[in-house]
Amino acid sequence: MFVLINDTIFSEEEATLKITDLAIQRGYGIFDFLKTVGGKPIFLEDHLDRFYSSAEQMRLNVKQNRSQLTEGLYALIEKNKLFESGIRITLTGGYSPDGFNIAAESNIIVTQVDFVINRNFEKSIGIMTYDYQRQFASAKTLDYLKAIWLQPVMKERGDDDILYHDNGMLRECPRANFFMVNEKNEILTSKSNILKGVTRKHILKFGSQNFKMDERELTMDDLRHAKEAFISSTTKNILPVTRIDGRTLSEGKPGPVTGALMEEFDRYVYG
Amino acid sequence: MFVLINDTIFSEEEATLKITDLAIQRGYGIFDFLKTVGGKPIFLEDHLDRFYSSAEQMRLNVKQNRSQLTEGLYALIEKNKLFESGIRITLTGGYSPDGFNIAAESNIIVTQVDFVINRNFEKSIGIMTYDYQRQFASAKTLDYLKAIWLQPVMKERGDDDILYHDNGMLRECPRANFFMVNEKNEILTSKSNILKGVTRKHILKFGSQNFKMDERELTMDDLRHAKEAFISSTTKNILPVTRIDGRTLSEGKPGPVTGALMEEFDRYVYG
Repeated sequence: MFVLINDTIFSEEEATLKITDLAIQRGYGIFDFLKTVGGKPIFLEDHLDRFYSSAEQMRLNVKQNRSQLTEGLYALIEKNKLFESGIRITLTGGYSPDGFNIAAESNIIVTQVDFVINRNFEKSIGIMTYDYQRQFASAKTLDYLKAIWLQPVMKERGDDDILYHDNGMLRECPRANFFMVNEKNEILTSKSNILKGVTRKHILKFGSQNFKMDERELTMDDLRHAKEAFISSTTKNILPVTRIDGRTLSEGKPGPVTGALMEEFDRYVYG
Repeated sequence: MFVLINDTIFSEEEATLKITDLAIQRGYGIFDFLKTVGGKPIFLEDHLDRFYSSAEQMRLNVKQNRSQLTEGLYALIEKNKLFESGIRITLTGGYSPDGFNIAAESNIIVTQVDFVINRNFEKSIGIMTYDYQRQFASAKTLDYLKAIWLQPVMKERGDDDILYHDNGMLRECPRANFFMVNEKNEILTSKSNILKGVTRKHILKFGSQNFKMDERELTMDDLRHAKEAFISSTTKNILPVTRIDGRTLSEGKPGPVTGALMEEFDRYVYG
């Protein structure tokens, strides 16, 4: 697989950064991740909006403007001849002379991976809750310390993902947003101190025409009364959650509200 | 300058990591930093203790044992012919096949920089306080997002460093520990949820034989009554603080207690 670093395409083996890069020195950088279907990026403008917003929030300069970056993405898709894929755009603090302050020029890395989304509507997962608030919640930073550190804990419990709450206020999963269905059949998702996902945005935009749907400050107590739940992300679209902290939801199968939303959303994305 | 990556010495220009490294992908890694004086590492065992402890806390394997790592450090010092220096040992999550889970093998990088410690006892700095708690406080992780992000704010205020407090509980600076002298001439330093510095440890060990000294839960209110203050680190030894959030301490000059401690500590380290 070929990789774009700044203005040059490299083979995977040659795709390297010097160790003075601020990601290696201090974990400093942001990224975004989008998918292509049939060689066409899905929700590209939303991902670029968020990429540039994350960069700005973290005080990182992007040398490439939107059209240059878009050209780079398409060039890479052509070069890799990979049409069903995930594309990651990473922006780091650059080669910092003092190993601490942001460099004048960031490094931008575009990678592509073979990826076909799971459209099996029967699949569901179990999740565990964990008290943690992401720093710089509205920027997609490289900081996944807690998520990675928690992986063995999660696996030992037999769970598939983690739902962060901040002292009882529901937030998000490390790489996905969280939705629940309450007793009134309303589909609710956390409102504050989260990374607002592109899939989440489109579910809210599209879904609210067809379902009772809202962004709200949700609590662990709301969670205990959830009838159904699901998570959303670029790689998962809508993925049902049927177990939370050991409690089974909707008899261990995707619930009726989630199922109906999934079918509608699938048509919305894939036509 | 030469760089040691895993078992191989590279020139600075050739010192690279592949972009699949988990530091670049997810900011995941730890490090330690020590100094050499006359070619001899100072407090080496303390730094190795902390390095292996940080690695263990973050679930990272270190292929090299202590004696292999020590041999590597000395080989690098010989190769670089740099006897007054700072040495950084970085350990990352390695080349992760899925870009998320820790790889079976970490990458270890040892770099050396030209560095002579400032032993001018007249120098002092101003600091600003900021409400923030480091994650994984007792591990020296790569997470410096907040510290780097705050640099322009700090510079605009004319300050030289940042003192974190967690909702009023004093913690530490991003790269140093904090000490204050109270109205009873006791030298106090924060006790909990901090990275316990090697210099801090030796100040406490040595200093308590000569001064009234204690680790304690300190608050922003204690700070407002501080007569003197200083920070400690490997690169700074003891550095007086004479301004906190705009308030001048000890008439803008290093105070008498700090001055006496600095002289004693300098003899302790350099003989």
